[in-house]
Amino acid sequence: MSKTSSGNYFEDFRLGQVIEHATPRTLTSGDVALYAALYGSRFAVQSSNVFATAIGYESAPIDDLLVFHTVFGKTVPDISLNAVANLGYADCRFLAAVYPGETLRATSEIIGLKENSSRQTGIVYVRSRGWRQDGRCVLDFVRWVMVRKRDPQAAPAGELVPSLPAALDGATLGHACPRLDISAYDFALSGSPYRFADYAPGERIDHIDGMTVEEAEHQMATRLYQNTARVHFNQFIESLGRFGRRLIYGGHVISLARALSFNGLANAFHVAAINGGRHVGPLFAGQTLFAWSSVLDKAELPGRGDVGALRVRTVATKDRPCTDYPDKAGEADDPSMILDLDYWVLIPR
Amino acid sequence: MSKTSSGNYFEDFRLGQVIEHATPRTLTSGDVALYAALYGSRFAVQSSNVFATAIGYESAPIDDLLVFHTVFGKTVPDISLNAVANLGYADCRFLAAVYPGETLRATSEIIGLKENSSRQTGIVYVRSRGWRQDGRCVLDFVRWVMVRKRDPQAAPAGELVPSLPAALDGATLGHACPRLDISAYDFALSGSPYRFADYAPGERIDHIDGMTVEEAEHQMATRLYQNTARVHFNQFIESLGRFGRRLIYGGHVISLARALSFNGLANAFHVAAINGGRHVGPLFAGQTLFAWSSVLDKAELPGRGDVGALRVRTVATKDRPCTDYPDKAGEADDPSMILDLDYWVLIPR
Amino acid sequence: MSKTSSGNYFEDFRLGQVIEHATPRTLTSGDVALYAALYGSRFAVQSSNVFATAIGYESAPIDDLLVFHTVFGKTVPDISLNAVANLGYADCRFLAAVYPGETLRATSEIIGLKENSSRQTGIVYVRSRGWRQDGRCVLDFVRWVMVRKRDPQAAPAGELVPSLPAALDGATLGHACPRLDISAYDFALSGSPYRFADYAPGERIDHIDGMTVEEAEHQMATRLYQNTARVHFNQFIESLGRFGRRLIYGGHVISLARALSFNGLANAFHVAAINGGRHVGPLFAGQTLFAWSSVLDKAELPGRGDVGALRVRTVATKDRPCTDYPDKAGEADDPSMILDLDYWVLIPR
Repeated sequence: MSKTSSGNYFEDFRLGQVIEHATPRTLTSGDVALYAALYGSRFAVQSSNVFATAIGYESAPIDDLLVFHTVFGKTVPDISLNAVANLGYADCRFLAAVYPGETLRATSEIIGLKENSSRQTGIVYVRSRGWRQDGRCVLDFVRWVMVRKRDPQAAPAGELVPSLPAALDGATLGHACPRLDISAYDFALSGSPYRFADYAPGERIDHIDGMTVEEAEHQMATRLYQNTARVHFNQFIESLGRFGRRLIYGGHVISLARALSFNGLANAFHVAAINGGRHVGPLFAGQTLFAWSSVLDKAELPGRGDVGALRVRTVATKDRPCTDYPDKAGEADDPSMILDLDYWVLIPR
Repeated sequence: MSKTSSGNYFEDFRLGQVIEHATPRTLTSGDVALYAALYGSRFAVQSSNVFATAIGYESAPIDDLLVFHTVFGKTVPDISLNAVANLGYADCRFLAAVYPGETLRATSEIIGLKENSSRQTGIVYVRSRGWRQDGRCVLDFVRWVMVRKRDPQAAPAGELVPSLPAALDGATLGHACPRLDISAYDFALSGSPYRFADYAPGERIDHIDGMTVEEAEHQMATRLYQNTARVHFNQFIESLGRFGRRLIYGGHVISLARALSFNGLANAFHVAAINGGRHVGPLFAGQTLFAWSSVLDKAELPGRGDVGALRVRTVATKDRPCTDYPDKAGEADDPSMILDLDYWVLIPR
Repeated sequence: MSKTSSGNYFEDFRLGQVIEHATPRTLTSGDVALYAALYGSRFAVQSSNVFATAIGYESAPIDDLLVFHTVFGKTVPDISLNAVANLGYADCRFLAAVYPGETLRATSEIIGLKENSSRQTGIVYVRSRGWRQDGRCVLDFVRWVMVRKRDPQAAPAGELVPSLPAALDGATLGHACPRLDISAYDFALSGSPYRFADYAPGERIDHIDGMTVEEAEHQMATRLYQNTARVHFNQFIESLGRFGRRLIYGGHVISLARALSFNGLANAFHVAAINGGRHVGPLFAGQTLFAWSSVLDKAELPGRGDVGALRVRTVATKDRPCTDYPDKAGEADDPSMILDLDYWVLIPR
């Protein structure tokens, strides 16, 4: 039997199967610095121990998306090494703050399987969880992925399309955010005076700035997350593939859009949940990412006067500024769109 | 009112205005490692906790220029987002050592304004300061920047060209350097036997080595400093601009030249002050930086037998080795010149 | 006398000469994070403090090759700045674990000299050692390098070709690995069930994955190691040289191959020794590295029931997958080969 892994194929997955993923990872201030260098994020809570402890964190928490990418990366060798496409996310909740020095591991449960009519591929629905060294679940999310079959004739090991929430209830969120003392939150240092009450559903924000991505950047990011998906690293193989070049990890796109969203959402310091998201199109090195957001909804958190939740939709485009909020035209996406993300952020009241 | 910032224009600044800049930043050993990876600096004091503590530091201090870039970066969103050019530096003093784990924030005071005759732009003179979490000022410097006007017809909010020192008095420097035990300074480990007494005004040093810069490198550096100047990151917009490409942050050039200067100035471990500097020409990715230095002056520090100050001029060039010390020809700069920096370094006696 | 160093030439070396290299270096979690971002290594012991301490390490040890590159880098300014080629390694032993926060310095002893018949160059044999702040030797290795002469007429300072072991005795290794509690070694988290007993001499493993290298990546790596070899950084000079471009540091190739070897050797968590190695051909940015390994030998460690040693040969290629184990054809190397490395790894029993 081969000692190497070529990843699982669609027919290898079983409903209810639980997979413990390799490699546990201690996140440190080194990872935090690299995350800063890769995205240039400027949220004060994640940037300054002094700012974070003044309001009630133990220290500056690790960026939520760095936690996400770390957990996601661990799932790749078992779940999506033979994926054709990462189709969607749902029910993603950040459940506990993670600080430098803490160690994460990941597990996944197969919650759905659906063979495609071509019998060449099937869709795998998986609930993945990230765990802190003390056994606390820090992240819980569902994604579904189209995975190749090894053998088109193989029978799928079951069929179930799970029922997933279109969006989380904002009022149930906030577990990863300690109760904060907003009187100690310095709105000059945070970069914006705008709070929960200042945002209204329907409001749109062009984040103005653009960020060009280089091959070395997305490769370093994706390796930092120990994500082994081949499409990101292997130009020799990709040169023969459908794009002719390396594809940038979708999570890199999310982190870039989130970093740009600081300009307009500077106090929305914590991603509490991701309702759903689509990687509408690929991003390649040399292209420039822009982003705009709209406020979809607002929610008070029961019993919490410190922070409220904004439901935000962020759209990222490539090589197209977002001054006029490029969007769908009926069913069709604007051709520049690369990301359409629906998530909840927490912001001081 | 828009929740996003497009930065200030010339007519937005007021004489005497004090700006508290966002985002406070805890510098860590992660930032130190990235700084090493970006520039390859080899000064023993900043590289080894053992070396640094042996001579009297609490631990290896953070590179002075990393402190500078961090503070500078914070000023960009408020001061120079609409700058046409960064014209000069003066009166820059490093006032306290910064160690990993410490947090910096920045403020700026508008100390001069001068509209240009075209009325399209004006010069803003600003004194910026970096502050440690304990309220101690770690860095104080003046820069002046040519900033666009939003409305050419707008009246400037005052006119004053401040008087600035051409150079600092070397004898007043050294506040960021604790009193050292030079008997514990190991000149084998530091890479050179040369001390204060070995350098003479007029002496010129070719730093020999060259360093080619890649887009990913300067982008990662500039994001690490949370510097948001668009010209460094946005190829889509810059492709339409005067150079057709991204401009490398001037501070990246300074750090590269400083790192190369190790070969010849290995014991000049601390930048105590910057008298002035000009970014003579732009540097672009793919070009190779070289540097040479001359000793302009020397100063003893009153009451200190441990270290003395050398006033150094470092010239950086692009795609041209510095074997023959390329310099000005009358008023004209050598066409390869990209940096002309005048600063004080401390070196063991 | 010039204050700058252009490095030593062949005739500058003396048999028995001992060189203390500049710059001591404290390795931190920042370096560990960068190492992860550069290579994407996934060995659990080096990745997780929880995993490492559970089995008996003080914390996650620093990757052996990061220790190697750090020590090697220090030797470059004195040993190989004027090298034409790095010819080989021998007798390389890792002697103590290194943890974040520890400081390394390096020394070298000239153990052999042999002028080439052209009298333009000569071979320098050097034993280099890395030392921890407490005086313990953490790494000891021999390399030999072809170094230019400054003056072809100069007489060499001696002639001696040292006797070097073709391979280390596996039974003498393991000093850098504390006695481990393998009952606490989690083979799900480590990514593979295969242990010492599961590998047999003669076995071959294709590591499957490929990794494309970018200029920014290998430059950042090599600067992180404070390695000053010009061929890696200076496109202006290299554009005039034999390849027309920057050469990637051979140690970067070794680290990439080692990271890829996780797929098939996931539990071989510690490089205990390097018997020998050849950089068969150069790697350039834009090329994709693949690797395969064979098990050459196995050794029990006297008195240790926790780990055993596998002697592994890893071959790396460029732009050629290793499905069919490309190798020598008689005396000739497969033209895709860039690395042929013979080393001992430790693996749980």
